[in-house]
Amino acid sequence: MKISVLDKGWVELQDLLGDDLAIVNAARVSYLGASKGAARDRKLLRYLYEHDHGTPFEMVVFKFRVKAPEVVFRQWVRHRIGSFNVQSRRYTEVEDDDLYTPDGWRLQDTENKQGSKDTLDAESSTLLARELARIYAECAAQYRRALALGVAREQARLFLPGFAVYSTFIWAVNARSLMNFLRLRLDQRAQWEIRQYAQAVWTIFREKLPWTAEIFAEKEQIAWD
Amino acid sequence: MKISVLDKGWVELQDLLGDDLAIVNAARVSYLGASKGAARDRKLLRYLYEHDHGTPFEMVVFKFRVKAPEVVFRQWVRHRIGSFNVQSRRYTEVEDDDLYTPDGWRLQDTENKQGSKDTLDAESSTLLARELARIYAECAAQYRRALALGVAREQARLFLPGFAVYSTFIWAVNARSLMNFLRLRLDQRAQWEIRQYAQAVWTIFREKLPWTAEIFAEKEQIAWD
Amino acid sequence: MKISVLDKGWVELQDLLGDDLAIVNAARVSYLGASKGAARDRKLLRYLYEHDHGTPFEMVVFKFRVKAPEVVFRQWVRHRIGSFNVQSRRYTEVEDDDLYTPDGWRLQDTENKQGSKDTLDAESSTLLARELARIYAECAAQYRRALALGVAREQARLFLPGFAVYSTFIWAVNARSLMNFLRLRLDQRAQWEIRQYAQAVWTIFREKLPWTAEIFAEKEQIAWD
Amino acid sequence: MKISVLDKGWVELQDLLGDDLAIVNAARVSYLGASKGAARDRKLLRYLYEHDHGTPFEMVVFKFRVKAPEVVFRQWVRHRIGSFNVQSRRYTEVEDDDLYTPDGWRLQDTENKQGSKDTLDAESSTLLARELARIYAECAAQYRRALALGVAREQARLFLPGFAVYSTFIWAVNARSLMNFLRLRLDQRAQWEIRQYAQAVWTIFREKLPWTAEIFAEKEQIAWD
Repeated sequence: MKISVLDKGWVELQDLLGDDLAIVNAARVSYLGASKGAARDRKLLRYLYEHDHGTPFEMVVFKFRVKAPEVVFRQWVRHRIGSFNVQSRRYTEVEDDDLYTPDGWRLQDTENKQGSKDTLDAESSTLLARELARIYAECAAQYRRALALGVAREQARLFLPGFAVYSTFIWAVNARSLMNFLRLRLDQRAQWEIRQYAQAVWTIFREKLPWTAEIFAEKEQIAWD
Repeated sequence: MKISVLDKGWVELQDLLGDDLAIVNAARVSYLGASKGAARDRKLLRYLYEHDHGTPFEMVVFKFRVKAPEVVFRQWVRHRIGSFNVQSRRYTEVEDDDLYTPDGWRLQDTENKQGSKDTLDAESSTLLARELARIYAECAAQYRRALALGVAREQARLFLPGFAVYSTFIWAVNARSLMNFLRLRLDQRAQWEIRQYAQAVWTIFREKLPWTAEIFAEKEQIAWD
Repeated sequence: MKISVLDKGWVELQDLLGDDLAIVNAARVSYLGASKGAARDRKLLRYLYEHDHGTPFEMVVFKFRVKAPEVVFRQWVRHRIGSFNVQSRRYTEVEDDDLYTPDGWRLQDTENKQGSKDTLDAESSTLLARELARIYAECAAQYRRALALGVAREQARLFLPGFAVYSTFIWAVNARSLMNFLRLRLDQRAQWEIRQYAQAVWTIFREKLPWTAEIFAEKEQIAWD
Repeated sequence: MKISVLDKGWVELQDLLGDDLAIVNAARVSYLGASKGAARDRKLLRYLYEHDHGTPFEMVVFKFRVKAPEVVFRQWVRHRIGSFNVQSRRYTEVEDDDLYTPDGWRLQDTENKQGSKDTLDAESSTLLARELARIYAECAAQYRRALALGVAREQARLFLPGFAVYSTFIWAVNARSLMNFLRLRLDQRAQWEIRQYAQAVWTIFREKLPWTAEIFAEKEQIAWD
């Protein structure tokens, strides 16, 4: 299951440990009870979520493979409960098409000073898009030149438009920590780019843990579509 | 796969995410390389272990179900990188046979003041075993009496020989954290009881991650048998 | 600052890193702003709490020294974000008065199957208290006898009423994790004994982080007295 | 205590919880012992370190304020046991002099494919330095232009040489996790830039925890100067 994100990125589910029932069964170890059917299982899930019994949700682990630009990755990696393995740009060269090009420009939000809203007029957008392409090309050329001179990749990348550089990473994360990620990164206050990734993760989450997803969406007021 | 431990306990592997190759492949995301056969894969694993590249080992997650006495559980739960769900003795009654009875008595080690060594003579052992059985029976009787009077389980358990009480728990842990557990709990300085559990976990670990286990055993001087 | 808890326990603040302002100032690094007075600082604190900006609250670290019975410690240690050093009962003997004696008996709650409510009648209470004292004395005597025979402390403790054994521990925890502890352990669903400790911790928290405490209490509906 | 690093960065100790003795005293809670003088305290510290008793080292917490370029920060933030608050480039503009300019160029190491060694010849170095300055100026100009058009900071930064952008952050970390950071980031395999920061952190660590630093340096073969 692989979902395209932005112009060149994607989110792919590589592996999964457990399902909705694994959560229910982990919780049941508290009282050594057995399942009494789907309706009761779902009711228990809801109880767990509402009463902050978080550990059963840790019993499901997702392993994703993701390709994302640095501007997204640097926000993603702030989520500490989880495991990351990331493509090393000290080891691998950045290819010319490893750069994120937005398909539009968002205006600074003057109320939420961290955010954006509305879009730039068409004329300015065309202008900026052209400039970005030119800057990308020029940066990439100088990066290549530095490499050709023998400069280390770890240092030559100073020439690059770093926030735009795509890399691939693997992310293993339990469902509890994943819901925390979704709650923060599906939020309107999150940067638009990472929200697109969170949306892809959410699509996978809903498919794999439908009962948990339903409760989560209801409680955290996450739009179902 | 379920292994008996002590008089009434066990360790059972419930589920597993990944294998040796999952570790190798996670590491390879660093340079986007592909496998070049088992020999190279094992060499890479060794390199990762020796150079403290710990995160790829986090990509494998074991989920165990364990039955262990409190004296073991309280040491186990000190390992913070991992997830626990535990039978609640506020919720479930302790049954008469939910108590750990050792099959021998170890003497206080006077050098390692936390440890034990050698065993008690047969006569004293018989005596103590009889006393322990008597104490267990008496404690259990008073516990039952308190319950019969309506006292809450959470409080009635004060009557019990608490360190001996068996409970069941689920433990999800990644391979990196698991190796840390094994390193500390297979060690001669660990209490004999938890060492028996660590031995069972080690048996499962070796079967499921044979390449990693081999390197780990060699580097940490863990006895293979 | 040391607060007595239960019959023989206590909570003592040993050391503290930071204060309310340290939280505000950590948050301000986001936009490199400077304080604009107490009113604005408190408003910012509230904003952080309401919008789940948790990391600034991690910049304050409390170090407590606590004496608590096992039944409390085993619940406490489940809070993984924090550091514990605990008195070792493999190393130190349990003294005769290292046991928790409740000053009353709570009845099993039949609705909340993990909880208790109301108290046992006076007559049964007196009876049980006498039995508990007798059991404690007998267990302690057998524990001493085992030690006298040379049995290792780590094993001799099987004779003890383990859930009642007091031990001392040190706990370092940041304010974010501490609030999580308080939210769960001040709750009516938490066992009465650990609630007494949470209350003592809460008293210290309120004195040291008064602004944060006020917001926390309001948002989580924690009783101020 | 503030130490300059690279061309425009620094590491500053803002606050500190505990000292060498706090570690020793936390360990002593295990057996409720008292200090028997400096020589015994240091011996105990050594024992703790050698036998992997890590938790006492968690009882000391450093709080640093750091200014570092993105290329360093993105490696730093991979250390998950610790707390970060970081200047937001969604909130604050990147100023023209917020860019890291290396004072020389390192060649790609062909054996250690992640590393660098030796330096570029003088002529090529001059050329590249001139090109880097030109690229920085051009990128900054386009970034300013985008901002002038009203584009959101979070998106306008795509124009910037992202890996070179300096930001300020606060880092709270316990001594155990800090030693892990030092072990990995003082290593010759770490990127030269982060090694300069690790060196500054190490200077502060040695001054504040001299006993622990001495043992750590000896055991991990860290150069003292």
